[in-house]
Amino acid sequence: MLEIVTNAHEYAARWLGVGKVASYIPSLANVEPNQLAVAITDKEGITYSAGDDDNLFTMQSVAKVLLLATALREVGFETVFRHVGMESTGDPFNSIIRLETMEIHKPQNPMINAGAIAVTSCIRGKSAQKRFEFLLEYARELLGNPQLTLDEDTFISEMKSGDRNRALGYMLRSTGVICSNVEQDLEVYFKACSILANCKEISFLGAVLAYGGVSPRTGKQLIDPTHVKYICAIMSTCGLYDASGEFALRVGIPAKSGVGGGILGVVPGKMGIGVFSPALDVHGNSVCGINAMEYLSNKLSLSVFSSVN
Amino acid sequence: MLEIVTNAHEYAARWLGVGKVASYIPSLANVEPNQLAVAITDKEGITYSAGDDDNLFTMQSVAKVLLLATALREVGFETVFRHVGMESTGDPFNSIIRLETMEIHKPQNPMINAGAIAVTSCIRGKSAQKRFEFLLEYARELLGNPQLTLDEDTFISEMKSGDRNRALGYMLRSTGVICSNVEQDLEVYFKACSILANCKEISFLGAVLAYGGVSPRTGKQLIDPTHVKYICAIMSTCGLYDASGEFALRVGIPAKSGVGGGILGVVPGKMGIGVFSPALDVHGNSVCGINAMEYLSNKLSLSVFSSVN
Amino acid sequence: MLEIVTNAHEYAARWLGVGKVASYIPSLANVEPNQLAVAITDKEGITYSAGDDDNLFTMQSVAKVLLLATALREVGFETVFRHVGMESTGDPFNSIIRLETMEIHKPQNPMINAGAIAVTSCIRGKSAQKRFEFLLEYARELLGNPQLTLDEDTFISEMKSGDRNRALGYMLRSTGVICSNVEQDLEVYFKACSILANCKEISFLGAVLAYGGVSPRTGKQLIDPTHVKYICAIMSTCGLYDASGEFALRVGIPAKSGVGGGILGVVPGKMGIGVFSPALDVHGNSVCGINAMEYLSNKLSLSVFSSVN
Amino acid sequence: MLEIVTNAHEYAARWLGVGKVASYIPSLANVEPNQLAVAITDKEGITYSAGDDDNLFTMQSVAKVLLLATALREVGFETVFRHVGMESTGDPFNSIIRLETMEIHKPQNPMINAGAIAVTSCIRGKSAQKRFEFLLEYARELLGNPQLTLDEDTFISEMKSGDRNRALGYMLRSTGVICSNVEQDLEVYFKACSILANCKEISFLGAVLAYGGVSPRTGKQLIDPTHVKYICAIMSTCGLYDASGEFALRVGIPAKSGVGGGILGVVPGKMGIGVFSPALDVHGNSVCGINAMEYLSNKLSLSVFSSVN
Repeated sequence: MLEIVTNAHEYAARWLGVGKVASYIPSLANVEPNQLAVAITDKEGITYSAGDDDNLFTMQSVAKVLLLATALREVGFETVFRHVGMESTGDPFNSIIRLETMEIHKPQNPMINAGAIAVTSCIRGKSAQKRFEFLLEYARELLGNPQLTLDEDTFISEMKSGDRNRALGYMLRSTGVICSNVEQDLEVYFKACSILANCKEISFLGAVLAYGGVSPRTGKQLIDPTHVKYICAIMSTCGLYDASGEFALRVGIPAKSGVGGGILGVVPGKMGIGVFSPALDVHGNSVCGINAMEYLSNKLSLSVFSSVN
Repeated sequence: MLEIVTNAHEYAARWLGVGKVASYIPSLANVEPNQLAVAITDKEGITYSAGDDDNLFTMQSVAKVLLLATALREVGFETVFRHVGMESTGDPFNSIIRLETMEIHKPQNPMINAGAIAVTSCIRGKSAQKRFEFLLEYARELLGNPQLTLDEDTFISEMKSGDRNRALGYMLRSTGVICSNVEQDLEVYFKACSILANCKEISFLGAVLAYGGVSPRTGKQLIDPTHVKYICAIMSTCGLYDASGEFALRVGIPAKSGVGGGILGVVPGKMGIGVFSPALDVHGNSVCGINAMEYLSNKLSLSVFSSVN
Repeated sequence: MLEIVTNAHEYAARWLGVGKVASYIPSLANVEPNQLAVAITDKEGITYSAGDDDNLFTMQSVAKVLLLATALREVGFETVFRHVGMESTGDPFNSIIRLETMEIHKPQNPMINAGAIAVTSCIRGKSAQKRFEFLLEYARELLGNPQLTLDEDTFISEMKSGDRNRALGYMLRSTGVICSNVEQDLEVYFKACSILANCKEISFLGAVLAYGGVSPRTGKQLIDPTHVKYICAIMSTCGLYDASGEFALRVGIPAKSGVGGGILGVVPGKMGIGVFSPALDVHGNSVCGINAMEYLSNKLSLSVFSSVN
Repeated sequence: MLEIVTNAHEYAARWLGVGKVASYIPSLANVEPNQLAVAITDKEGITYSAGDDDNLFTMQSVAKVLLLATALREVGFETVFRHVGMESTGDPFNSIIRLETMEIHKPQNPMINAGAIAVTSCIRGKSAQKRFEFLLEYARELLGNPQLTLDEDTFISEMKSGDRNRALGYMLRSTGVICSNVEQDLEVYFKACSILANCKEISFLGAVLAYGGVSPRTGKQLIDPTHVKYICAIMSTCGLYDASGEFALRVGIPAKSGVGGGILGVVPGKMGIGVFSPALDVHGNSVCGINAMEYLSNKLSLSVFSSVN
């Protein structure tokens, strides 16, 4: 297993130099682009990794999976999906159009920004701080790191430059999809996006999802198995922004990417995958990360659409 | 296996009476709504079926899978996807909007009407008749029925009432996505939609896709295995119109539905599924059909997103 | 002249009982719907009025004319139209779609909410309070009432329920169309909308615009004549929400309506018109108000598209 | 008057060399770009002209005014506006989007392509040929030239390259807005667009509209005065594609442009204007033509929004 991880890293490294790091906030723009790390966590909870596997990055949109898992646990399937849909959209991740055009104004799915904000509004608590702490505690279990924390600089920058998400939030409230305090929702949302992790922790989260919500290390049921199925289905159809369809064809693994350069992959019944490389393609997905995942998918026949199982 | 198929039929029959048959052409509007049939074809090519399993129905949008398979075989992956995208869309199946709004005007995917018409334009030949015969011959192999034919009445009605598809076709030609004869493309497309099949034949097509393109009866490679993976991925993200996401959550099986009431299901490595019941929900999917597939998915753990494999 | 005003009132009164008052905030929802007032101010500055001509109402969108006039005076044509376009749109007044879809993200025109907010951002000052006072002072001149003030209740309600406008504001800032403080812009905007006036004052504003920006009472040049031409042109193409075209056909007078029930009319070279009746049609325009203006237009051949001049 | 026309020509000539001729069909692409002509027809029916005033050009979208006048005469206001709206749109002239998004699917106004096709469907007759002859006969009266004819080459090219309009036509029929034969409607529409005229004839049409529908030469009532008011209002809000608003500000004259380089102007009660110069700006309007009209508007205070009358 270590060999295949090492080979995937080597293969993906060919794309180092391609793509650009996210530039909308300084803490992302200043990241060293030539980082690359690949990790797999298997049935026994053993993690194999290669490259810059201790390097931390902000989870960004990968945290949408955490937000969804937390909201599902707290308020359940019915309530969550009263605030957000299950369908993918051909629109960019930050699009506001359908919040106006759809007869039912709820955002299309939990993986676009508007949907993640609606999901965030389901995570309740006395203050934004309490709500985030609740999420963080759960995230620490799910990523297998009790020290997990956020990058304060990133959070502050996101809050400052978050006008588009602010517009999404107020639009949601204007149509009654959410009735919470938008600024507080954004605080929780941006804090979640600012959580720091390395690729090994991401692969551990993938393994929890791959094994029906059970921690492969402790055997503890961390996520309801039905929720796991839902989360994987949504990652599969909407996880890589408006390149989710192409990724399904080329790779065929339920996954979620973030503009921090991380990609979380879930191979049901088999393994969790975490890759990290901050240079992004035009869709906002890690260039090396996608190639590493494609390599693993092909070498190990991991596509859920493949007949070899 | 016969027992589970029978149980699925029995379970799904509870929804008989719910939904409405398609009404836009007489040959669909006059169909008896209370038909229901379920079939599975397994690794050995044995088909188990229950209910109205000999009843014929027009394939309608299920034929989009045939069109895609035929085009991929004839002109290959590169050419097909120069005419059509791979991403799902939040829009209705017959939407024309994105043909104008997208910078690249090609339709989003091969499962929406505009995409299927673009795919059809890749199936070449001296005349519409020749082009359709080419497709029909292949379809006979894929569905395992050398007598497969079309319903002439349905075809004629579709041609007469096909103004929306005509608009899509001319829109595609106006932006250079296709440069073929639109009326001929529509003839091939509507003829493909008018092909008559029963649920056992649909399940056989599913089995061919489930086993990497190999006929489980003859062992003959009918579809390139790479194309199979692509077709299944596209069915998974776009196969049930704008309810594809919900179906992925509830059922998790790559599938394609048609307004004739049929649904094709593919469980990679495991089986092909064909269900038929003409009463449709608001999205245009068979009400009983979806419930039959959900039953099978839950009882046999067929979801590709499930950890139990 | 008094006779024609009285007749217009009598004619328009036939529509009392038709339409509904705006209901999104209490101070509008609780308004007595059966009020009706008509006023004309002529070349000499004499105002003829009939009906509830002393009744006050909040200017609402009629204030968009004040905002535009103030911004043009303060920063000039070039700067204002760097923030906002000149074209009408087929969209509802509060639509957010084009702020995303247009290549140039500036709002289409100053008469839709997004455009009025962008215009407001051009009215500068140390605080929202100062900025509004600046506008109010000018408004007092333009409406010929040194006591002009706002309705505090309406302002507070608008701020509370203003999430859609908040979304528009943050959307504008996220694309760099504005770089001001959104909450302050909204304060100025909502205060302007909450200004109380009666129909006679509105007709006086109309007269100022009808006579090239010169007060017909004092002879003072209040608005630059070029700005007057621009304001009237914009009112003509975008003044009655998405019924501006129909109003141009039926009435042909540059006008601006508000959901408070007021309509400002400008007949270039001839007169200013102010009408008020709070029951609105589906487009948000005063039912009796439109009929009063149509009566005046027909009786006095006021349409700018009429050959009789 | 001749002097002002000559001066307008001289002024507008400064923009010769700016802009590009339409290139989508050979008969437009091959036109000499440096042509320029200006004409005015006054109350007495006397036409003053300067420049290339005998040069013929195809009317293109200017013919939408003829189509509307003919349809109004044949089937009346109610019927025409059951097929088409009165509101301007922020969309390009050939946009198909709103035909899908609007609840009522009729095109927004008679000056966009979809609207003009819907208007054309109201001009009835046994064959496309008869329907066009009917229009042509009327056009000969309205332009004051009994020899008026069409350019066969342009017509044939338009039919060949007319897929976008074909898409619009079939879209209209698919939603029941029209129920006529689309190919025939397109034949009438493209023939109307191919009518050849010079700027003097265009200015005569303008004069007929300026004087309430009465020919200033014969005194004959050619267009119903109510229809004239409607036509002018529609020209004012939608006549210059998506630059209609800017034209209202700068020029303020009801006008209709065509990609052949012609612009028809109507100054109610005062004069008709015809200008011609084939190089177009990005919106499809004649560059020199707009400048000539702006010159005339400023020098003679022709803006309908100007207080000097």
